[in-house]
Formats: sequence, C-alpha cells, structure tokens
Amino acid sequence: MSAISTIDFKELKKEKDELVVRAGYLQRLIMAKKIPVMIVFEGVHASGKGRLSNELLLALDARYTDFYATHKPTEDELRRPLLWQYSVNAPTYGNINIYYRSWYSLYIALINQKFELNRYTDKKSLVKEIRDFEKTLIDDGTVLIKFYLNISKEKQMEHIRKMRENPRTMWRAQEYDAENDERYEQEMKKLLKDGNHSEAPWHHIEYDVRERAVNEMLRTVTSVLEKAIAEHDRKSSELKERDGKFKGPKDGALDGFDKCITIEKKEYREKLENLQQRMREVQYTLYQKKVPLFVVYEGWDAGGKGGNIKRLVEPLDPTMYIVNTTAAPNESERNHNYLWRFWTTIPKSGHISIYDRSWYGRLMVERVEGFATNQEWSRAYQEINDFEESQTNFGAIVIKLFLYISKEEQLTRFEDRQSDPNKVWKITDEDWRNREKWDIYVEAVNDMIEKTDKKNAPWIVINGNDKRYARVKALETIVEICEKKLYEKSGK
Amino acid sequence: MSAISTIDFKELKKEKDELVVRAGYLQRLIMAKKIPVMIVFEGVHASGKGRLSNELLLALDARYTDFYATHKPTEDELRRPLLWQYSVNAPTYGNINIYYRSWYSLYIALINQKFELNRYTDKKSLVKEIRDFEKTLIDDGTVLIKFYLNISKEKQMEHIRKMRENPRTMWRAQEYDAENDERYEQEMKKLLKDGNHSEAPWHHIEYDVRERAVNEMLRTVTSVLEKAIAEHDRKSSELKERDGKFKGPKDGALDGFDKCITIEKKEYREKLENLQQRMREVQYTLYQKKVPLFVVYEGWDAGGKGGNIKRLVEPLDPTMYIVNTTAAPNESERNHNYLWRFWTTIPKSGHISIYDRSWYGRLMVERVEGFATNQEWSRAYQEINDFEESQTNFGAIVIKLFLYISKEEQLTRFEDRQSDPNKVWKITDEDWRNREKWDIYVEAVNDMIEKTDKKNAPWIVINGNDKRYARVKALETIVEICEKKLYEKSGK
Repeated sequence: MSAISTIDFKELKKEKDELVVRAGYLQRLIMAKKIPVMIVFEGVHASGKGRLSNELLLALDARYTDFYATHKPTEDELRRPLLWQYSVNAPTYGNINIYYRSWYSLYIALINQKFELNRYTDKKSLVKEIRDFEKTLIDDGTVLIKFYLNISKEKQMEHIRKMRENPRTMWRAQEYDAENDERYEQEMKKLLKDGNHSEAPWHHIEYDVRERAVNEMLRTVTSVLEKAIAEHDRKSSELKERDGKFKGPKDGALDGFDKCITIEKKEYREKLENLQQRMREVQYTLYQKKVPLFVVYEGWDAGGKGGNIKRLVEPLDPTMYIVNTTAAPNESERNHNYLWRFWTTIPKSGHISIYDRSWYGRLMVERVEGFATNQEWSRAYQEINDFEESQTNFGAIVIKLFLYISKEEQLTRFEDRQSDPNKVWKITDEDWRNREKWDIYVEAVNDMIEKTDKKNAPWIVINGNDKRYARVKALETIVEICEKKLYEKSGK
Repeated sequence: MSAISTIDFKELKKEKDELVVRAGYLQRLIMAKKIPVMIVFEGVHASGKGRLSNELLLALDARYTDFYATHKPTEDELRRPLLWQYSVNAPTYGNINIYYRSWYSLYIALINQKFELNRYTDKKSLVKEIRDFEKTLIDDGTVLIKFYLNISKEKQMEHIRKMRENPRTMWRAQEYDAENDERYEQEMKKLLKDGNHSEAPWHHIEYDVRERAVNEMLRTVTSVLEKAIAEHDRKSSELKERDGKFKGPKDGALDGFDKCITIEKKEYREKLENLQQRMREVQYTLYQKKVPLFVVYEGWDAGGKGGNIKRLVEPLDPTMYIVNTTAAPNESERNHNYLWRFWTTIPKSGHISIYDRSWYGRLMVERVEGFATNQEWSRAYQEINDFEESQTNFGAIVIKLFLYISKEEQLTRFEDRQSDPNKVWKITDEDWRNREKWDIYVEAVNDMIEKTDKKNAPWIVINGNDKRYARVKALETIVEICEKKLYEKSGK
C-alpha cells in the first residue's frame, strides 16, 4: 500500500490523456499510409488483459480497429491448421487489430489438451509455423506488437476474489483453472525465453498498478507506431525493381513437353470411368479419415484446366468439395497479403479444395507483369513453401499440377475459341498479350517448380497437347497419390 | 425396367448438352446485369440432391457460382437466429448460389431436435421469418428457385443399399436415420402444401430416372432465368423516383427536444460510476443467460454518439462486445442487399453489438440523398421491422437511441471542431451539406421513428444538448431495459 500511496494518479491521468491524443493522431497516419498493425495481449488468467486491451480499444477509432478474442477452439477451428483463424482475421491494410489472447494461447491449448479433432503432435513444427507466420506478415509490412502481462500472485487472487464475491460475476471466477493457468505460464515462459523463435519482440508489462500499466502500454504502442511510420516512409522512397525481362534459355522442369502423347477414345472412356469411380471412393475416405486435400491447377492459357477440373469433380459429392477460381484480386483481397484470400478457402478436414490458378500467381503473372517487386516475389518461394507446410503438418495432402501445351497447340486452341460463338467469351486480349511473353513465363515457371517442388507438396507437369491424355493423366496422378496416402498408412 | 427401356438416353444427352450451353449463356447475362440467384435443393436422404446439384454446378461457371451445404448446425450457428448463415451467405449481385439443403432443413432440424443452445419454441414465428426473408430477397431482385426432389421408396433404398455394399462408402449409409427422414418429409409436406408461406414456388422433380431429372432441373433453371432477365430489363427501364424534398412541417417524435436539460458535474460523476458498474454486471448476466444485445445509435452529426458509446463500453469486457461503425458501403457491401452487412455483425448469444449508425441509414441518408429509390426506402420500414423481429424472436434485446441536438448546438460544436487541431479531422464538407438539409432530415426521422418504434425494439430519443445529461440518460436507458428483461423474468 505504501508504494501505491506515493503514486501521483493525477500526473498519470494527464500523461494518459496526452498518449491517447497521440495514439489517435498516429492511427490516422497508419490508416492513410495503409500500414497493417497487430497488437497481441497475452498473460495468465485475470492478469489485466481485458482491462488493458479495452483501454487501447477506447483510445483508437472504431472505424479502423478490430478486436479479436481467442476462446476455446470451436469445431470449425479444430478442423483447420493452428494459424487459420489468425490468417483470416489479419488486419486490412491501414487497420489496427487487437488480439486478446492469440496464436500463442491456442498453441498452448492444443499441445496441452486433448481436443477431439486436434491433429497436432509435433510441438516443434508448430513453433516453426508461428515464426514463419509472423515473419511473412512482418515482411509484408505488418507492425506486430506483443504484450505479455505480469501480475503478482496476490493481485491476481484479489481480482478473482472480487469476481467471486459478486453474485452476478461469480460464475466468471469459476472459470479459473489453477492447473491450466500454470501450464500456460510455463509454456509461455519457454517461448519468451527463446528470443529466436520470432522477429517481433515481447513487451513485458507489470499490471499491479492499473493506471501505470495503461500508460506503459500506450507509451509502447505510440513509440512503436512512430518508428514504424518512419521506417515505412524510408522504404517507400527506395527504388523498387520489377522483373519482366527474359534472361536467356536454361534447362528446367518444362523441357521435353512439346511432344504430343495421345490416347484412344475407347481407352480414354474406360480409364476415365474407372478413375472417377476410384476418385469418388477417395473422397469418401478423405472425409471419413478427416484428411483435407488441396488440388492446385496451374498451366498455360487454354491448357485445359477447366475441362480437367470438370472430369475431376464430375463423380464427387458437392457438399465436400469446392472449386476456387483465382482472378485479379478484388478490393478486400488487394488490402491484404497475397496469401490471405487462399487462407480463407483452405479445405476443412475431410474436404477438398480445388484451385483453378492459385497462390502461384505471385511467381508467375505478378512477377512477369511487375505487379510484385523483385523483393516480394523472391521472398514468396519460402512463404509459399511455409504455407504449404502448415497444411501438410496438419495432415493435408497437397497436389500441384501444371498443364503444359506447346506454343503451336495454344495457337490452334485460341483460334478455335475465336471462331466458336459459344467459346468466344473465353478468349481476351490479355491471353494474346500473355502469349507474346511465352519465354519469360517459361523461365518463371521453371524457377517456380525448381524452388517449390517439395516432397510434402510435389509438382507434376502434365503433357496437355492431347486433351484426353491430360485428363486421364491428371486424374490418375491425383487418385494414385491419395490412395497411397490413405490406404497404405493404415492398411486397406 | 420396361419403363426405363423405352427411354431414349441418347436424345436426353443431346438435350442436356443444349441446356448446358444455354445455362452458360444465361449465366453470363445474369452476371453482366448483376442479378443475384439462389437455387435450393431439398428432398429426403439419398433422393439425388447431391447428384443433381453437382450437375448444376458443372453446368455453371465456377467464378460466379457458390455452393453452400447445410449440415448439422454448429455452435456458432445455434448461437444466432435461423436465417443468419443464409443471410451472410446470400449471393453477391451477379452470382448464382446453390444451396444443398437450406433454411427449410435447418428449420425442421431446429423444431424437431433438442440442440443445446437452441432457443426456438415457436414454429409459427419461424415460418413467418422464412417468408419475410424470402420476400426481402425477392423484392431486392433476387431470383429464388426451389427444388423439391421426389424419389420412390424403392429407388431410395437402392441408393442406400449401394452405399452399404462398398466398404469405402458404407459409413455414409450408416448416416441414414429412417425416423429423422420421415419427420423431415412430414414437415416438408406441410410447408409445400401451404402455398401462402412463400412468394417463390416449389418445383417438384421426380428423381427415379437420373438423366431425366437432370434435364428437368436444367430446363427449369434456364426458363426461370430467361423470365427473370426479361423482367429485370423491363423494370430497369421504369422511371425511378427518389426523395430529397421537404414536404412541410408536421408533428413528430423529435418535437420538443430543442430545450437544454443539464446535469451538475458532481451528480454526473456519481451517476455515471453507478451506471457503469451496473452495466458491467448486465454484460456478465447477458453472457451467462446467453442473451444477445443490440444497441443502435443514430442522431445528428456532432450529436455526441462517439462520446456516448465510449461511456457505455468503458466498463465492459472487450471479449464480449463490438462497436460497429457504419460508413459508406464498400465494394462487397454494395454488391449485396443493404441489410447484409448488418447480418454479418449481429451479436452471438451472450454478446453485445453496438452500432454507431446502422441499417437506419436506409431511411435517413439513403432516402434524403436519393441513394435509394422511393420504392426501396418505403419497403424498408417493413424489412427493418422484420429484421429486428428475427433478432428478438431469438431472444435478443434491441435498443435504439436517437441523439438529438438543436440546430444551434450543432453549429457551436461544428465551430469547436473546426478550431481544434485535434478535432478538425472530425468535420467534413459533408457535415455542412447535411446541415443545410436539416428539415428534410427531421421529416425522414419522424417517419422512421413513427413506423419502426415497436414494443420488441423501441426507439428512445435522447436530448443531447448537454453532453453529460445525454451520456447519463442513454446509459440509464440501456441499463434499465436490460435489468428489467434479465432480472425480472426469472427473479434475481
């Protein structure tokens, strides 16, 4: 008590008012410069996370601030990887998102508790996922501020006692689980000690005197934002290089696919029927074993992606698959990291997501057309490998198909489309423009396959010059990979 | 078998190919004209809903088609009204959304089964909600096509037997619950008979011969779309009147609020502290009793909404409330019915959603500025009453506050803002323009309060000329309404 009696609360109030005005001013800059901000509050039960995050919320403009609380995971959340909900709820550019508990609390809950549907067994790979997740966001310009609240045992017990004494808040005190709380604290201490696990430092706050804690928190937020704005301005003035030039021929994954491999109509029908039957069974087995499946289709314009996907989904139950087509990003997609829109469409356990073009746009059209800077697309190889690893760690099967056709075959198909009134809408000036950059695209795709063809998420180039051959080959590839993973592991 | 042997499958295949081309052509028109389309498939277990909806999916362009399946409701869904998930997943303008099972299946599941958290007891009010929901969508230009699949008992059993015979699909057959299925069929028959319950007719399809059913479905879809496009073109050419004119003074809810009621600083502090303490308890009780709360703030520019909301949320736990600010709609909001964005932010049971401006924009700024046609805003009184009734039927408390200040007081506040460097960003040219239309706004607000002040969702006009008085009055109103509903019903 004596320590508290020497605190000048009037002085603290004055400082707070100034900090609140400052925070409001900085938020308007953050918004104008479209910088995304994530602010995390972690700490044991009744350590002041609610009070402190509410004070921050009050200091900010509700139009550009979102609040996101981590609760006991729902079934929907347990059916997707750890970072799904946070990736989907990452801030829009210019927004400040406050996280009351975060991926750290969820990580600890998942490793400590036996939730049904929880597929994680490997702690280490989860910590790596967290690090990768934060790195991708920070590289994208996100300001990440992490608070860890410390509170004395006496003060914590006082908070809980107060709740218990009031009949209307009593039930809240009953939520306190001393054992759980201790486990949380132990795991957090390990993470806090391991400075290497993240690029964003933790800010510790002593909560015992609330008014002091509030000012400390606001001081940290304003000073980090000030620095981030200065850094943003510095970087904006840097020269940004973009690709789009051809560097000369070199060997790569696409070599040797110009030839035409054909298949007879009768053989095609028989094989297709057999494969579709097996694919339907694969789908039911995926569902039963709760394995998510990604099938990514990339390839040249008119390469036959649409017809291929049609043969894949024809036999399927529509309640458990979805086809995602990737066009130019819309307003809200442009206001997030390029991976965001794909996080929003990942399959939940047992479901299939099929992508007609995908996150690989970053390494093809965005690179070649200069929509992404050299720095951005160069970074994307690692980011994409990390993203796919997050999925396969969770138990997903990831299959990536590239539908290749020769330049001559493409010309034939373009001309066919142009002359068929039912298909003419499929061909645009852009297709012709892309065709002129054939060699530059070959180079980009060769780089892409070289750097993202991984054991957990392989690339398969399909010779697409004969449509029937390509359909059978693609479906066969998918069915065989899935059957191997689904039936060999645990026997038939 | 003899009936089937007379079917010309080759002829059916030819017709199907033509219908698919036609459907693709119509979808491109639907997309260009931005008409939203909802297509519902209902029917007993194994009646062909999956096969038929997949055929439709295959006929359409994945870029403008979404598929939405209704499963056993999740906790998130049970914590919101019946129509929440369908309102949120309504089609974007120009999109075709396919619903495998729909609000009809969910309705039957809710009335027949004892889900934890299921708050519905009144069947009749739910059927009314469904009718209102469909009417609002149809009035907004949505094309709603509802299919009910009929299948003979023999054919149904044959489907189930086939699933059972294959070891990889066996588990699916086990999902079949004859009793549940029968209850579903009985309830659906009642709804199908009651033609009055909806403006969108049901289309019955006999599934026994799949190829015939597919063509029947495609024929229906194409012919309904054709008619809808013609109707859309006809309506587009009609003259659309818009408001924005002053019709002359008349008595209304805002009369008599120009006077200034003040409160002493000391009394203000004491009352505020007491009310905030009670509000915090109200929040915990809402959570414990799983009651959602809506607090809607409307009022003149500079009427003090922000400061008022701040006093309301100051004492609250931030993990259970959210402040939604309503600005001009963004791209995806403009591509939906005006109520859509509010459906996405309704509180789940036990939570509080506070609205800094709301769906009432339809009856104020959209009416006065002519963003909505006379027909649109005239219809909105009923639509809004229905929307709020959907919430209160589910057990929500809905409180609507209008912060009134006199024209003179507004001028003083505008000038204050203009001269304070920390507040100048708050005032825009638009505020001054709105001020010029003061009388037109008074008229619109008087109409609005007259027609939407309901017992289940009352309007309270607050005299805001003295900020302190308004803050205490608003908070007192909220606390008293909530305490009455929460504590009187079941005693303390």
